[in-house]
Amino acid sequence: MIRTHTAGSLRAEHAGQSVTLAGWVARRRDHGGVTFIDLRDASGIVQIVFRDEAEAHALRNEYCVKVTGTVGRRPAGNENPELPTGEIEVTVTDLVVLSEAAPLPFPIDEHVTVGEEARLRHRYLDLRRANQAKAIRLRSRANAIAREVLGARDFLEIETPTLTRSTPEGARDFLVPVRLQPGAWYALPQSPQLFKQLLMVAGMERYYQIARCYRDEDFRADRQPEFTQLDIEMSFVTQDDVIELGEAIVGALWRELADYEIPAPIPRITYHDAMNRYGSDKPDLRYAVELTELTGYFQGTEFRVFQAEYVGAVVMPGGAAQTRKELDGWQDWAKARGARGLAYVVLDAETGEARGPVAKNLSEAHLAGLADAVGAKPGDAVFFAAGTRRHSQELLGAARIEIAKRANLIDESAWAFCWVVDAPMFEPVDIPGEGVVEGAWTAVHHPFTSPNEEWIDNFESAPDRALAYAYDIVCNGNEIGGGSIRIHRGDVQKRVFTLLGITDEEAKDKFGFLLDAFQYGPPPHGGIALGWDRVCMLLAGVDSIRDVIAFPKSGGGFDPLTGAPTPITSQQRLEAGVDAKPKAPGEDAAKAKAAAK
Amino acid sequence: MIRTHTAGSLRAEHAGQSVTLAGWVARRRDHGGVTFIDLRDASGIVQIVFRDEAEAHALRNEYCVKVTGTVGRRPAGNENPELPTGEIEVTVTDLVVLSEAAPLPFPIDEHVTVGEEARLRHRYLDLRRANQAKAIRLRSRANAIAREVLGARDFLEIETPTLTRSTPEGARDFLVPVRLQPGAWYALPQSPQLFKQLLMVAGMERYYQIARCYRDEDFRADRQPEFTQLDIEMSFVTQDDVIELGEAIVGALWRELADYEIPAPIPRITYHDAMNRYGSDKPDLRYAVELTELTGYFQGTEFRVFQAEYVGAVVMPGGAAQTRKELDGWQDWAKARGARGLAYVVLDAETGEARGPVAKNLSEAHLAGLADAVGAKPGDAVFFAAGTRRHSQELLGAARIEIAKRANLIDESAWAFCWVVDAPMFEPVDIPGEGVVEGAWTAVHHPFTSPNEEWIDNFESAPDRALAYAYDIVCNGNEIGGGSIRIHRGDVQKRVFTLLGITDEEAKDKFGFLLDAFQYGPPPHGGIALGWDRVCMLLAGVDSIRDVIAFPKSGGGFDPLTGAPTPITSQQRLEAGVDAKPKAPGEDAAKAKAAAK
Repeated sequence: MIRTHTAGSLRAEHAGQSVTLAGWVARRRDHGGVTFIDLRDASGIVQIVFRDEAEAHALRNEYCVKVTGTVGRRPAGNENPELPTGEIEVTVTDLVVLSEAAPLPFPIDEHVTVGEEARLRHRYLDLRRANQAKAIRLRSRANAIAREVLGARDFLEIETPTLTRSTPEGARDFLVPVRLQPGAWYALPQSPQLFKQLLMVAGMERYYQIARCYRDEDFRADRQPEFTQLDIEMSFVTQDDVIELGEAIVGALWRELADYEIPAPIPRITYHDAMNRYGSDKPDLRYAVELTELTGYFQGTEFRVFQAEYVGAVVMPGGAAQTRKELDGWQDWAKARGARGLAYVVLDAETGEARGPVAKNLSEAHLAGLADAVGAKPGDAVFFAAGTRRHSQELLGAARIEIAKRANLIDESAWAFCWVVDAPMFEPVDIPGEGVVEGAWTAVHHPFTSPNEEWIDNFESAPDRALAYAYDIVCNGNEIGGGSIRIHRGDVQKRVFTLLGITDEEAKDKFGFLLDAFQYGPPPHGGIALGWDRVCMLLAGVDSIRDVIAFPKSGGGFDPLTGAPTPITSQQRLEAGVDAKPKAPGEDAAKAKAAAK
Repeated sequence: MIRTHTAGSLRAEHAGQSVTLAGWVARRRDHGGVTFIDLRDASGIVQIVFRDEAEAHALRNEYCVKVTGTVGRRPAGNENPELPTGEIEVTVTDLVVLSEAAPLPFPIDEHVTVGEEARLRHRYLDLRRANQAKAIRLRSRANAIAREVLGARDFLEIETPTLTRSTPEGARDFLVPVRLQPGAWYALPQSPQLFKQLLMVAGMERYYQIARCYRDEDFRADRQPEFTQLDIEMSFVTQDDVIELGEAIVGALWRELADYEIPAPIPRITYHDAMNRYGSDKPDLRYAVELTELTGYFQGTEFRVFQAEYVGAVVMPGGAAQTRKELDGWQDWAKARGARGLAYVVLDAETGEARGPVAKNLSEAHLAGLADAVGAKPGDAVFFAAGTRRHSQELLGAARIEIAKRANLIDESAWAFCWVVDAPMFEPVDIPGEGVVEGAWTAVHHPFTSPNEEWIDNFESAPDRALAYAYDIVCNGNEIGGGSIRIHRGDVQKRVFTLLGITDEEAKDKFGFLLDAFQYGPPPHGGIALGWDRVCMLLAGVDSIRDVIAFPKSGGGFDPLTGAPTPITSQQRLEAGVDAKPKAPGEDAAKAKAAAK
């Protein structure tokens, strides 16, 4: 090492010692012939003092320097109790400029005013900022903590391929042309799902991997084309075993990194309860607001809008105090979500009388009993949704979140975890613009998810009500992980394919190798995957997963740092075999087989 | 868990207990009404006993079963001391077949006779074999051990992007079309090299990652299109610091996984010494045979072949006893390597007289002194190479390895490590078929490798002799890792580019973002990468890296398990934007920028 100590490790006990430090020039102050500089390295900051002004003169912000000097106590009154090294300073006797720095595009400071694009273009400077660096450090610790939990339980860390075969949802796979087999392509995996199940068939029993996954889709705000999940699979387990493991990992992470002891066990709520009570399959339980179903209450109403499959409401405490403009704002909010609007009444703060555009459509009896029915008090607002159960509940669920924000109901320091269990196996095929296709079903999770004990023998009798051994873990309204028990019985798998309208031929084509494997004594197994970017984001207390990724991409998958993606040269195109005529099926395999010899 | 114990954990102390086990049916023996089955799970094997023959009758090899039964001591004389569970057996009272198994393509046995292709196609069965599973388990432990060493030294585990920009050696990059920016492509990285250097500029100081890397090249025997390296970078270090860390990691791995204490420090040999003495930059030091240079010795010879830039020899102990056919075999061996042949003399076992086709071309004096000059004894053979120093030494180096094999000089249980240091910075550009291009140089490592102290200010004066701070670690003749101190001074980097004939424009185009970063106070830094597949292969004592990869590909990058790569559909091709017209440079960035808003 070209230094003897790290900057942040120096204390009063080092006083009198000669030390050599190396790091970056941070803040600088000149005081009548003496120059004070904060020297920063990965460990922290220490104040260095140049008695010879001339020597320090050439130093600019973010120069990388090596200094030798003597540690001394700061003069009484000059200590900085906010800094771990605040009792001392290092008086420089020798300075070496290791490298210079051009004028910076933005200051290395907690508060930068440049946009994220500029920060990402110079991410190597962005990461010199304390909070950004801290988030990356935290992520490294999170990896270590998860591995400690898994290692202690005999899990094996196993790498699975990332150059693999295009999967059923092929359209969203990233594709990779293969020079050695022109016209043939690998796909980058959306998850190690199939491989981790194969590892269970292989008898590995306990697998994990902090796995890179890929999705070539229209990623919105907080999506990246490549992302990371803590991927886990276990054999000979029930749902409770996987949930217990998930709690152990999450518990250790929050204990060590957020100084928070998650109350155990984490409460479980069924998918249907979550939808009914919170209008969401990932409810934020930091605030108590719940949905109320009013379908029965409004039975017989003459208000056409409320003559629907489902009518529900959510209360905004104190919402009656909103201005007309604020109330109109809710209509815009609802329309932006694709709804026609958001019906509401406000309850007069004094009299409790229900007023507002909807009130006049409702009978006096319905108005009189409303506050009790929804648990509202004078001064509250009541928002309604009516229509299909699912869409109405989703609208109310979104309104619930918006209410919490606008009414300041969220304790930002709070943590609220839950498991959402008993997820449905199937949902009707719903083609955008065409609507539900009668009698056609799609898998809510993947088609290897096992029906639960109650439904395994009869899910065909009521596919809309059949439940799966599928579970999601939710933190503060974020789904941070999810998994399922998988089907390990060939007969059950066949029945699920049949219900989903997947023919034997299609099944063989899409995941034939998994079905082949399942012929040879597959064990009962299940697993979970934690969205590692999101978990680290929550632990780090930052707003975007980009803050916990060393080199994130911005919108559209563009990397402001490297400029990727880029056009390729015609030579690259030729060599990669992009335009080679694809071989007839089987021809490739035969050729590769020959090559393998 | 659906079991109470693991099979391999049962001991005599469990006798009398009722247990539930789950695993696979391995070996089976029927003995007059009683059936004995080896039940296998990840922990090991236990013998289970069916007193009711009928119940066991339906069980076939590799059925997955759950059994409940009572642990009992085996009858005296029936213990199996080779098995940890050999003192007991479990008498079954209840059996549940969890899943059945079709007839196996090969037995789950240490000795399979099917080819590797068949094993890989059914890798989930192949991994049920004890030694294959063991190799995968070992690899998981290797990861943990390396992380322990690095964690204790404050290294951060940081993930770097795998969807990135095509690099200088672009031709070998895997390319990935980007749906959201039709006509633009990512590249999969050949290593995290540029990103890890950016992390040093970012002040992260100590980085590591067990990183997936990609190379779309004609991979021979032991290459995979995706491979893994333990990738490390450190700031404020010298070459000795990186070497010390490398030794700590390798030391811990061999101590814990091979029960071998590597003598410390690992010896260092310069690149030139390695070439001169062993004819290899990754010498196998398990055997003592060395090359002898004879250029001076044969000065003035009339034998035209030996009137060369370099003449050298390597001795095969006892080689005079080879048959004529064996000696001819060496000529075929040399020709297969592209040499014209391999000149030799044999020294008569009795008289020490030099005989053989070359002998008649040499003067009596040269023949008389030869044994002493090369350190040969009567009964040995001496092989010669003459020509350019490099090609001749490489031929002799290869002969040295072949001698060790044919003469049984290799102690297969031995471990021999060394560092090869002082690697050359540059080598002449050598175009296949055209030869060396006068005055044109290429970087032996990458162009960011730093010249050493002696050469940093004057490498231009003798590029062929300039040395780098570059080092490789070698184990038993395998290069298992390598690295370098990087250039952190802009002026030095410019001079290196100039020597390599890289113009400013090219440099900017190829790695502009790294050069940009280097404007802002880059620290002195260096690193190393260990070839993780090869390290694990050596530790596991297996012959192929495919044995330490869960799902390896076979020749030509073909995956016998999934059938990847495959042709893609025209819809996939369309959606991926494969055939979209590339945008003008800059247009993409502008578009992406807009998308990011």
